[in-house]
Amino acid sequence: MSARAPGHERRARAPGLDADAPGPGGAEAPDWQARVPVELEANAYDILIGPGLLAGAGATLAERFPGRRYAVVTDTTVAEHHLETLSASLNDAGLGYSTIVVTPGEGSKSFSVFESVVDGVLSARLERGDLLVALGGGVIGDLTGFVAGVVRRGMGFVQMPTTLLSQVDSSVGGKTGINTRHGKNLVGVFHQPALVIADTATLDTLDPRDFRAGYAEVAKYGLIDDADFFTWLETNWRDVLAGGPARVEAIAHSCRAKARVVKIDEKETGPRALLNLGHTFGHALESVTHYDAERLVHGEGVSIGMTLAHEFSVRMNLCSPDDLARMRAHLIDVGLPTRLDQIPGDLGTADDLMAAILQDKKVKRGRLTFILTRGLGQSFIADDVPPEAVRTFLADKLAGHAGV
Amino acid sequence: MSARAPGHERRARAPGLDADAPGPGGAEAPDWQARVPVELEANAYDILIGPGLLAGAGATLAERFPGRRYAVVTDTTVAEHHLETLSASLNDAGLGYSTIVVTPGEGSKSFSVFESVVDGVLSARLERGDLLVALGGGVIGDLTGFVAGVVRRGMGFVQMPTTLLSQVDSSVGGKTGINTRHGKNLVGVFHQPALVIADTATLDTLDPRDFRAGYAEVAKYGLIDDADFFTWLETNWRDVLAGGPARVEAIAHSCRAKARVVKIDEKETGPRALLNLGHTFGHALESVTHYDAERLVHGEGVSIGMTLAHEFSVRMNLCSPDDLARMRAHLIDVGLPTRLDQIPGDLGTADDLMAAILQDKKVKRGRLTFILTRGLGQSFIADDVPPEAVRTFLADKLAGHAGV
Repeated sequence: MSARAPGHERRARAPGLDADAPGPGGAEAPDWQARVPVELEANAYDILIGPGLLAGAGATLAERFPGRRYAVVTDTTVAEHHLETLSASLNDAGLGYSTIVVTPGEGSKSFSVFESVVDGVLSARLERGDLLVALGGGVIGDLTGFVAGVVRRGMGFVQMPTTLLSQVDSSVGGKTGINTRHGKNLVGVFHQPALVIADTATLDTLDPRDFRAGYAEVAKYGLIDDADFFTWLETNWRDVLAGGPARVEAIAHSCRAKARVVKIDEKETGPRALLNLGHTFGHALESVTHYDAERLVHGEGVSIGMTLAHEFSVRMNLCSPDDLARMRAHLIDVGLPTRLDQIPGDLGTADDLMAAILQDKKVKRGRLTFILTRGLGQSFIADDVPPEAVRTFLADKLAGHAGV
Repeated sequence: MSARAPGHERRARAPGLDADAPGPGGAEAPDWQARVPVELEANAYDILIGPGLLAGAGATLAERFPGRRYAVVTDTTVAEHHLETLSASLNDAGLGYSTIVVTPGEGSKSFSVFESVVDGVLSARLERGDLLVALGGGVIGDLTGFVAGVVRRGMGFVQMPTTLLSQVDSSVGGKTGINTRHGKNLVGVFHQPALVIADTATLDTLDPRDFRAGYAEVAKYGLIDDADFFTWLETNWRDVLAGGPARVEAIAHSCRAKARVVKIDEKETGPRALLNLGHTFGHALESVTHYDAERLVHGEGVSIGMTLAHEFSVRMNLCSPDDLARMRAHLIDVGLPTRLDQIPGDLGTADDLMAAILQDKKVKRGRLTFILTRGLGQSFIADDVPPEAVRTFLADKLAGHAGV
């Protein structure tokens, strides 16, 4: 646990200006922000976190990457809210850039949009030393990172995540990619950004539902291995939602947690799997609802999935019912769904859910690998879960049984 | 210089069965072949070279990569000549595999063929630990390597090059990619194969023109920094063309040379540029002939380009006319073109050629980077070449001036 972990505090505090972090540049930016260094073997980079950072992004880029040119990739929705701010800051810093705007939504993680963004980057005559900028949520980050990973066999890129989910999850770790008809994220590369600039004020333009969905990933870091952080969240979640220092601290803490895991397992061969807490159930729910965001967004699937993982752990006599009750109560407080019957429409049968689970899981010697837990902040990789026990559990949940 | 370099011998010799190399498997395979280890930081692999290796490829794969499944990517021409041999060998070894056949030619290094090969690999339900096999020339290798580099964020692949060019050049070094309307190889990744199996008997099915074109890259390794190898080639080139031990030795020596350079400069930031001897002029000639293989294939461009690089070096008083005469005489002996007027059709003006050169070269402080030479086997990276000197030189060559 890091010395700056908020678990040691009972209330939000301003972490203060990090001595190494450049000032945010904008005249009205507050004087607190966080810098999270991500130290990978050949790829070290910083995550800068704070409100108003976009307004100073040009100055930050000019200082860190002298002499480069840029292509900003974004979608029409994000462009409407934030492109003017970023453009002004790039212009003020005297940086040359092009803009590539795509349609919002998961549909842009496609071969055809990939090809058109590649074409846009090459049309802008960017060289290998130049940088792409991903301004937007997870879709923009995954797409832009993949393009950067393959144009001229690898260009640098800067993430400017504008959703809570992407600030705490998808902009850390270097996974990039697009979808295919066989499944999501099946084509991509591991490609680390050169810098992440997370402007926490951009989250104020989010639909509250999307903010809450991203919060599920914040809570996840507590549930994985950091009960103190979870306790801190129970006290401070309203401030995290409201903005200000508590939001910066929650995001920075989440990034530090993910960075630690990614550092020891960059290519996801071992402990990085812990980050999938709630995701096996969550992905299955996204699959049976056909990735229809009207019914379920990713973070909501993770929220229900984490609850199911805890419920299943209680059923397996691994976790106490009190810990389950506590995690569930917090998710409910925040306004996140925790039950299957909160998803509108038909989810099919337990067999349908099992089929979805088996789609992205290998069964090894008749056993499944799941992230289960022995209590709050005590998750572990269980590689001997009997599929039949999962199926029965899901059938009971679908039948509306209240117990575990 | 390696102890096994052929420069020490005046005539071809059978290198003998390498103790570490597995037998070729086929009952009628000769008992000589070569193994060239490529030792990169995180990616070490072997290049196996010898006649008849395809017939034993299944046994080799089964021994080296137990429990894997395969997707063989090839084109219709190569399939006609070699797919039956490879299939039989995979079947004999009890290996599961799918086959993906594309149209021959550079046109298959496109987004659409890339997408369809990805789809074929995913339809075959290959997992991340499974392997793609690239059976064919440089196009198949570049395309398949790129697909392998991005499906599931990186699968392994095995090169089975069937042209001389791909056996000595494109299957060593890990460059993969496809073309875009902005230029060749502008989209791809560095992705090293898990193994290269170069069956030297497949070269007997090549058009002699294509064999000679590949030979230009063999001669290049002598001209870069290995005068002894060039001398050996002057004596043994007929045996290299005929097949047998001299062919295996020439290919193995070329692979060792490239592997040494790639080892010290995997991502091409420094000395790897020496491998581009003759390629700046060559690429420009390919560009102004619109990559029309009827007029010029890559190796022919390299042959003329290397001659131009030596002629230009003589003009700059760097290289002796005797060394130029000797390298030119050898290329002519082999049947390779060395003069611009050997390319059918109009090449445009010196300005057109300069424009093509500047397309893939940055001018730094008004100077160009070229690979020039101080004599046979004494090439070097010159980063201060005045563009005007190159333009005048090209204008003189186009005007048919015999001198340098």
